[in-house]
Amino acid sequence: MTRKPVIVTTELQYTIKADREIAALLEIEEGSEVNDRVVKLSAGGTVFVHARSLSPLERMPETMKEQLMRADIPIGRILRTHNLETRRDMGELEILEGEPTFDGVPVLSRAYKIVHNNYTLMWINERFPIDKRWRL
Amino acid sequence: MTRKPVIVTTELQYTIKADREIAALLEIEEGSEVNDRVVKLSAGGTVFVHARSLSPLERMPETMKEQLMRADIPIGRILRTHNLETRRDMGELEILEGEPTFDGVPVLSRAYKIVHNNYTLMWINERFPIDKRWRL
Repeated sequence: MTRKPVIVTTELQYTIKADREIAALLEIEEGSEVNDRVVKLSAGGTVFVHARSLSPLERMPETMKEQLMRADIPIGRILRTHNLETRRDMGELEILEGEPTFDGVPVLSRAYKIVHNNYTLMWINERFPIDKRWRL
Repeated sequence: MTRKPVIVTTELQYTIKADREIAALLEIEEGSEVNDRVVKLSAGGTVFVHARSLSPLERMPETMKEQLMRADIPIGRILRTHNLETRRDMGELEILEGEPTFDGVPVLSRAYKIVHNNYTLMWINERFPIDKRWRL
């Protein structure tokens, strides 16, 4: 849309233990290891998307785990290099106000799961700021 | 990109028998039934994409077959309502000149296969005219 290259910047990248909420979301045991990754997508110096992904490590092929944790590789490319057959189950789609993600600018937030063999491989929440930056 | 609704118009929709070339492409027997569908995607009265799909009917769930042949439903939505896990195997990406698709305007043409259970469920060729209509 901007006709400029999209840059993926990793803001944070941790392995966490699933708390009750995350365990329920991903349908895994509480305490299982989860990759928690936050990236920003920007073009021409402007951030257009903020995305958080939660991926249960126990369900990741080994090489995929490495790619995911090496960061700065878009999810779509990671899935493609592994020839995984997946579907996307769309979840919430809502407008959130007063969130810190874009310094309080209202955001359009959507969440979905990338599903493989009927297991959630990844939960993703993308947030798009609602302001003039989209007047391209 | 246009900020206008995208309209899917079916140009043709036939059941054909696979000739040798199509059989090889889809890895099916020669003579098997294939759904051959050509759609145009337009927005604000301008056609932006011309897409042809070839789908072996023997691999389609019954309800999917009906949707596909009822036309005017985008492929993405058909796949979604069936909860199919798929991957996309990208094929040719090339510029073609002198094709009738857009009255001789050069087109960017890409082809890919939608794969499910390691079988090709659908071969798709999308063509994008290379001209000023993209200066939105």
